[in-house]
Amino acid sequence: MAELLNDRDLKFLLYEFLDTAGLSSRARYGEQSRDVFDAVLDTACAIAQEHFAAHNAEGDANEPEFDGTVVHMIAQTKTAWDAFAQAGFLAAHWDIEEGGLQLPEVVLRAAMAFFCSANAATTGYPFLTIGAANLLRAFGTPQQKKLYLAPMGDGRYAGTMALTEPGQGSALGDIKTYAVAQEDDGSGSGSYRIFGQKMFISGGDQNLTENIVHMVLARVKGDPQGVKGISLFIVPKRLPNPDGSPGERNDVALAGLLHKMGWRNTTSTVLSFGEKQGAVGYLLGKRGSGLGHMFQMMNEARIGVGLFGACIAYRAYLLSLEYARERAQGRLPSCKDPLSPQVKLIQHADIRRLLLAQKSIAEGALALCLFASSLVEDQHSHPDSACRTQAGHLLEFLTPIVKSWCGKQGCLSNDMAIQVLGGSGYTRDYPLEQLYRDQRLNPIHEGAEGIHGLDLLGRKVVMLDGACYRAFRASIAATLAEAAPYAALQPLQAVLERSVAKLDEITAGLIELQKNDPDRGLANATIYLDAAGRIVASWIWLKQAVIASACLVKNPGSDEAFYAGKIQAARYYIEWELPGASVSFDLLAQNNAIPLDMRDEWF
Amino acid sequence: MAELLNDRDLKFLLYEFLDTAGLSSRARYGEQSRDVFDAVLDTACAIAQEHFAAHNAEGDANEPEFDGTVVHMIAQTKTAWDAFAQAGFLAAHWDIEEGGLQLPEVVLRAAMAFFCSANAATTGYPFLTIGAANLLRAFGTPQQKKLYLAPMGDGRYAGTMALTEPGQGSALGDIKTYAVAQEDDGSGSGSYRIFGQKMFISGGDQNLTENIVHMVLARVKGDPQGVKGISLFIVPKRLPNPDGSPGERNDVALAGLLHKMGWRNTTSTVLSFGEKQGAVGYLLGKRGSGLGHMFQMMNEARIGVGLFGACIAYRAYLLSLEYARERAQGRLPSCKDPLSPQVKLIQHADIRRLLLAQKSIAEGALALCLFASSLVEDQHSHPDSACRTQAGHLLEFLTPIVKSWCGKQGCLSNDMAIQVLGGSGYTRDYPLEQLYRDQRLNPIHEGAEGIHGLDLLGRKVVMLDGACYRAFRASIAATLAEAAPYAALQPLQAVLERSVAKLDEITAGLIELQKNDPDRGLANATIYLDAAGRIVASWIWLKQAVIASACLVKNPGSDEAFYAGKIQAARYYIEWELPGASVSFDLLAQNNAIPLDMRDEWF
Repeated sequence: MAELLNDRDLKFLLYEFLDTAGLSSRARYGEQSRDVFDAVLDTACAIAQEHFAAHNAEGDANEPEFDGTVVHMIAQTKTAWDAFAQAGFLAAHWDIEEGGLQLPEVVLRAAMAFFCSANAATTGYPFLTIGAANLLRAFGTPQQKKLYLAPMGDGRYAGTMALTEPGQGSALGDIKTYAVAQEDDGSGSGSYRIFGQKMFISGGDQNLTENIVHMVLARVKGDPQGVKGISLFIVPKRLPNPDGSPGERNDVALAGLLHKMGWRNTTSTVLSFGEKQGAVGYLLGKRGSGLGHMFQMMNEARIGVGLFGACIAYRAYLLSLEYARERAQGRLPSCKDPLSPQVKLIQHADIRRLLLAQKSIAEGALALCLFASSLVEDQHSHPDSACRTQAGHLLEFLTPIVKSWCGKQGCLSNDMAIQVLGGSGYTRDYPLEQLYRDQRLNPIHEGAEGIHGLDLLGRKVVMLDGACYRAFRASIAATLAEAAPYAALQPLQAVLERSVAKLDEITAGLIELQKNDPDRGLANATIYLDAAGRIVASWIWLKQAVIASACLVKNPGSDEAFYAGKIQAARYYIEWELPGASVSFDLLAQNNAIPLDMRDEWF
Repeated sequence: MAELLNDRDLKFLLYEFLDTAGLSSRARYGEQSRDVFDAVLDTACAIAQEHFAAHNAEGDANEPEFDGTVVHMIAQTKTAWDAFAQAGFLAAHWDIEEGGLQLPEVVLRAAMAFFCSANAATTGYPFLTIGAANLLRAFGTPQQKKLYLAPMGDGRYAGTMALTEPGQGSALGDIKTYAVAQEDDGSGSGSYRIFGQKMFISGGDQNLTENIVHMVLARVKGDPQGVKGISLFIVPKRLPNPDGSPGERNDVALAGLLHKMGWRNTTSTVLSFGEKQGAVGYLLGKRGSGLGHMFQMMNEARIGVGLFGACIAYRAYLLSLEYARERAQGRLPSCKDPLSPQVKLIQHADIRRLLLAQKSIAEGALALCLFASSLVEDQHSHPDSACRTQAGHLLEFLTPIVKSWCGKQGCLSNDMAIQVLGGSGYTRDYPLEQLYRDQRLNPIHEGAEGIHGLDLLGRKVVMLDGACYRAFRASIAATLAEAAPYAALQPLQAVLERSVAKLDEITAGLIELQKNDPDRGLANATIYLDAAGRIVASWIWLKQAVIASACLVKNPGSDEAFYAGKIQAARYYIEWELPGASVSFDLLAQNNAIPLDMRDEWF
């Protein structure tokens, strides 16, 4: 069976594309080195293979069941969770004094990639727990941290994010869950009673951990409607005893499990808070700032969803590549002799196109996610404050693209992987069909496509007086300059440069239109997102091609096939996929309103 | 629950877009009228609702099982099969003297659309039986017809097409199944013994009918390798007694069921022929002409697969439209008041885009399939021989496009339907997720995308000295001329005209290149297919828009919303989707060889 990820590519991304080894020069990572990072990755790969990949199909075929009292899951899920926790991955990015390993974000994101590739559904549990713990780290009081953080770091407690409700979907401002301050303690840091229902809560119940810490968005009774009245609460499944052991059951009930197309081994739950006396909850952070706080987790989760998209595509790419190399079928058009031997599938031009397109998406998406993680890292640990700011701005711009481009293109990539296998790809005897179903979630959770289009065009390009957009433009300009010395890259550089100039023009026009007519100005935001995604992916590929070209010049003959593949994939993406942006640009430039002007009664 | 199809649209397609009522002027249909056709459609709709739609989800959740002796399926499958047969649909297109109803192809294809929309998997059984019976009608001896045709017409026997084998996939010339003439009768019309294994045989075993008639491709031992040595055989599961009742079991064994992503209630089988003394088979048609004969069934099946693609997309479109009209969520960008009521999903610009895009695919695909069926009709029953020939040529050109455009775009359309529902679309509590999985088969069966690209560019555009391409060009030119009087359509006409001129230029260039270098000339055939598909779909939409415009002029105020919707969908398709063809044209014009030049070791 194919690898989970191409190790050569991962090392290229971390140590050639990014300067991950150089992080050891930063104060926080003085004790670290590439050897440590590599050991972390080896551990992740081994655990992902042994404890996650091995039950991916079985978890899909035997989804969790709720007997009215407890949730039952296949036993390997617990073994996987324990192995993940015991290796320290839940707290590996925490400071040493917090009980962590003080490892860089980007290394851990790379480690996470093995788990995402091996088994997205089971990885959902640690993924959410890490995010919830980060909220506690950022906004918790010392006492809250003491009670919840340590058991989340060692795997005794898991975490969830409880935002969505049955009646509101993406419109978080309309949530109906409310909190009532308790008389004994209405100070704002004390306890509340929570009432309401949450839906699509992943990991909302399970039998892996002795407790679950829900991060719940709710409105304190009487606080204003809309997003400004929303607060964030810690609502544990069991109320912890003062010694940290889980005590009595809180008033949080599992109303039911949802049955999904994929990711089946991640429970997706409907949770009822306060069916009896009210669920005990504790305000986390500032009252009325809940959505802002939650966005920290959501932004992280969005890069995480991008990584799931990247890795599910990557796994399918490697599996279909392996199949195409092994399976003999048919002959080339030039061969008319039926007695000649069949060629391997990979020899067929169209199969090669399907593989190269997948390579461009899978490797491009992984590169993009790791790049975004390096920005998270820089934002926190870069020694230069201007660089920290710049990284933050660029990250703001890229986040909706990382989330959506990886998920959406990931779906197309997984579609191509099935097509390489043909009928076999459509059967459950091969892993491709599960990966296709798993991937389909990524354009939905953590904000559907349309939401990210509005986020990019309605917020990110205008916020901070355009600083985020400018940070992006400066970065892309730097890569265009780096490509200049390489003759073979000049056509790619020229195409990308023209596209970026077009993006500037379109963006300026849409910002103006938004001011006067927000409904029309944002009507085509999703295709703006798609076009921007193609430009970002082209830039990420050009960056890789520049590095590959430099290596070929510096050490001719060394690793030539690998670098040639990177350059060919960059050429493929920029010549075959980037031009799709021009179709969107034309429509955006016209402010084409055909969908907007469509009337309900015309359907 | 939404309808299976929009009845107004179906009537528009049959009686305004096509002149189906006018068929009663043809000799074969002298007894028919629109009233008869409408009654047939009503019957189909009622049976499809009651006996097919009702168990679509249950058939998906409880797929057929093989206990080593018999296949078990949910009981409603048999009830559905019987209802279909008893209504006469299996033989409705046969002549009266054959025991049929002598109904036109296009009407029955429209009737079939209800079944495809209701339940693709259960419809697989009659779909294959009708195709197999048509082979017998075309190539069977009087005795073969007597033995097999009558029970296939009344539903006692089912049929299959057994082409694919485990080791050969799409490359039919390499099949290994062979036939040995029996000494008692080696005349070419007598009996043979068949040995070999077939895979992915839909309906290859079931418990619906007392017998199954397999149409098997095999090579008579000693006949040449390659496609020219292939013959077609009738291989019944049970050997019929002289009185037509099914007799002893033939040496055809079910080796196992395959487990698919979707279409689960259609058994997908591995069949072993001749594990013991050899399966008794009878040559159908001419020895060595098996593939040619089978192509009759395959061409028909390809339009049929297109129709499945169209209808699965159509069903999902109607369901997501219904949801978008009912579900309130969020507010428009211009509304900043969190106390204002939420709007319906359909009010959001991006949701409207997702719905309009689906409409353009679903209705466009249904129109294309019915148009192709009208060509099948014309090919057989048009009174003018030149028109019969012309219809045949146009059909040759369109068949790979009908098959692939509907399946491929259908997948994108079903993807959008899920996106309209968001998280709910991803759960099995809504029917969208099953439709998404069902649709994914259509770009695979009856020839994967790549095969149809080669068929279109390597065969259809060059065959008969370009007559098929010319027939297509003449038809599109006629529509462009019809659009000229309508000012509102002129921009669409102009865009399509330019695209067609570009297609001419690209096609001519590729025909030349193919002659000198078939591998390079055909390397990008799949994107040629995609671009040609966009042009064909644009043409079908322009045709519809012309008719809608004419109706609005003739009867102002009558059915205005319906016709306005048709025109808006035509505008959407031609302005938003057709331009994607220009990306492909640019790559084709360059003979871009990036995928072809990618080397195995570079991956």
